Amino acid sequence: MPTIQQQAALNLTKLRETRPLVHNITNFVVMNFTANILLASGASPVMAHAENEVEEMVGFARALVLNIGTLTDDWVDAMVKAGKKATSLGVPIILDPVGAGATTLRTNAAKRILAETKVSVVRGNASEILALAGAQAHTKGVDAADTVDQAAEQAIRLAKELGVPVAITGPQDLITDGCRVIRVDNGHPLMGAVTGTGCGATAVIAAFSGVDPDPVSAAATALAYYGLAGERAAAGANGPGSFVPCFLDSLYNLTPAELEHDARING
Amino acid sequence: MPTIQQQAALNLTKLRETRPLVHNITNFVVMNFTANILLASGASPVMAHAENEVEEMVGFARALVLNIGTLTDDWVDAMVKAGKKATSLGVPIILDPVGAGATTLRTNAAKRILAETKVSVVRGNASEILALAGAQAHTKGVDAADTVDQAAEQAIRLAKELGVPVAITGPQDLITDGCRVIRVDNGHPLMGAVTGTGCGATAVIAAFSGVDPDPVSAAATALAYYGLAGERAAAGANGPGSFVPCFLDSLYNLTPAELEHDARING
Amino acid sequence: MPTIQQQAALNLTKLRETRPLVHNITNFVVMNFTANILLASGASPVMAHAENEVEEMVGFARALVLNIGTLTDDWVDAMVKAGKKATSLGVPIILDPVGAGATTLRTNAAKRILAETKVSVVRGNASEILALAGAQAHTKGVDAADTVDQAAEQAIRLAKELGVPVAITGPQDLITDGCRVIRVDNGHPLMGAVTGTGCGATAVIAAFSGVDPDPVSAAATALAYYGLAGERAAAGANGPGSFVPCFLDSLYNLTPAELEHDARING
Repeated sequence: MPTIQQQAALNLTKLRETRPLVHNITNFVVMNFTANILLASGASPVMAHAENEVEEMVGFARALVLNIGTLTDDWVDAMVKAGKKATSLGVPIILDPVGAGATTLRTNAAKRILAETKVSVVRGNASEILALAGAQAHTKGVDAADTVDQAAEQAIRLAKELGVPVAITGPQDLITDGCRVIRVDNGHPLMGAVTGTGCGATAVIAAFSGVDPDPVSAAATALAYYGLAGERAAAGANGPGSFVPCFLDSLYNLTPAELEHDARING
Repeated sequence: MPTIQQQAALNLTKLRETRPLVHNITNFVVMNFTANILLASGASPVMAHAENEVEEMVGFARALVLNIGTLTDDWVDAMVKAGKKATSLGVPIILDPVGAGATTLRTNAAKRILAETKVSVVRGNASEILALAGAQAHTKGVDAADTVDQAAEQAIRLAKELGVPVAITGPQDLITDGCRVIRVDNGHPLMGAVTGTGCGATAVIAAFSGVDPDPVSAAATALAYYGLAGERAAAGANGPGSFVPCFLDSLYNLTPAELEHDARING
Repeated sequence: MPTIQQQAALNLTKLRETRPLVHNITNFVVMNFTANILLASGASPVMAHAENEVEEMVGFARALVLNIGTLTDDWVDAMVKAGKKATSLGVPIILDPVGAGATTLRTNAAKRILAETKVSVVRGNASEILALAGAQAHTKGVDAADTVDQAAEQAIRLAKELGVPVAITGPQDLITDGCRVIRVDNGHPLMGAVTGTGCGATAVIAAFSGVDPDPVSAAATALAYYGLAGERAAAGANGPGSFVPCFLDSLYNLTPAELEHDARING
């Protein structure tokens, strides 16, 4: 059995060989960046949100991203429809509960998706995950103040209750299915100064889920890859602006061997 | 009482310390760039446009951006709803009348927002402002040909009539509440070769309005900061493509002391 | 009569002198990149999709882009409405059938636009064009696997049947009105690693169609210009991330003389 670092390298190799189609129903702010992140990583992105199209599109996909930023009611319906189809086909669903806890629309949408579809991994920042766990989180818009440490216990409880693996990203990432707990230390603070890096992490978890059937392993290795690319990008950047092209280049150029060597995954 | 240059430095310091949440209802073309501009400047952006969410979201915000690009009727309704809530809460509203004068939908939307909500600052190019003033402007799509000079008199009249401060951006920026007239000379022509730099200026005025209760001072200092970042970015750019990452880096790295020293604000 | 290389230089000169307004009804993923591509090339972009606005907006335009990515039914209606107005005004319509062949919604939308409006050029990858020709294409999401060679014969047949010039982009671009067949060899593989480069090609064909009444010549010269800018950008890029700013800079800086010299257009 491979180590988790070896698994990371295997997943990245497989991703680039098979170029899995990742169907995204995601928010307007990050659509372009998400598509470029997926392409740079080796996946094939498609964005489609029409209710009369999503079931057909998800039939081609190896993973489905449901991201609730810039939400409206009709998008929630489309997400649930796509999610039900994905569930019936065994296509892994990665949920990004952007802004859950901030507004009723978003909190309810995330809960509805969790209730009506079989989510493979839910990825959020600490306060978003706390909101799903029903705790008293203080979500300030979509950029959260709560730390991973505060949320870890809740995440384990939430993963157990829902039977859904949870990934909390922040200075340290935490991935748990309620049983195993894995921590990833790759990453860089500049990632927090660029919009959509969290949403991009969700998309890369989806890409890895298209090649690795174990959601905990897929999420942990994806976040190590993503964070390592962020570290390398930050080394060459003068700020959040130059970080973006460097980051996409790093995602594109990072080799499986480098990932195996520099992934900091524990647990 | 601080000079306007000192006020600029104070506002930038306060912005980075308090990281005010800026709620944006803005067009699809610029959502990502606007969010990154706000993050680089020090603010916390959130985008939300659902009619059943905007009132809740604006309750967390320190400023609200209403931008009428890529408009449809339901978005106008959401903007008015958010704007009325902002008005009742005293949250400053910054209106960007993208393409006013070009189509009936946009001209009417801008006028409706001005009539039904208490706008703090309206920021546009010369022909958009002329359109709101009811003059014979020749808006060619969303990129205007009329100069600040032609529009200055109209802007003063408009600001007086509506009781709303007006900011016209162009080679020279003009800010007026109908009484005070301030001109800002920071900026660079490359900014006109990148989509969304005008919309970004509106968002940064919103961010500064979240820390400075005087709309004229907030707008003038924001535009000096924004234009100065543009000058610095242009110095390192080979064209509009490399300008963008340089610009975000400059917004991020520009210090209050540098702003105080290099802001060219007169009036 | 100028050579096609001389025509390319003439078109680029005219584009930058007249800055034609290009009205885009396009998908959410590429709106920002498309606008920046058009600005860098010398055109004036506007994005507008409301049914009660598109006719008015198209009245100002020199070309109309209809792009069916991230589609919904109401957008199809707006596209047809804008397209009918453009047809009546003689404004050239450039159709990008993103994902045709992948889903019924998209295939039907492309066919409806071709049936109800007078399209000037349809630009797609090989599998999208094959789908319009009714062949057994295997569209995998929006990134196609079929080669230009497989699609060339179908393209000629499709152009003849519909009376619409067809441009297929890929490693080699092919442009045909069913009679003339032109091939363009400019371009670089990195363009396939960035989302929206195909959609951007469509927009630049629209810009060139705003200054060149011959759709075959407009499309071929636009693709040579676009591909040449891609070659130059790739020379300075470390991956798809740094390619983007380099590409926009190259579109902006490329001179008519350089284009005339390095355009590889045959046929």
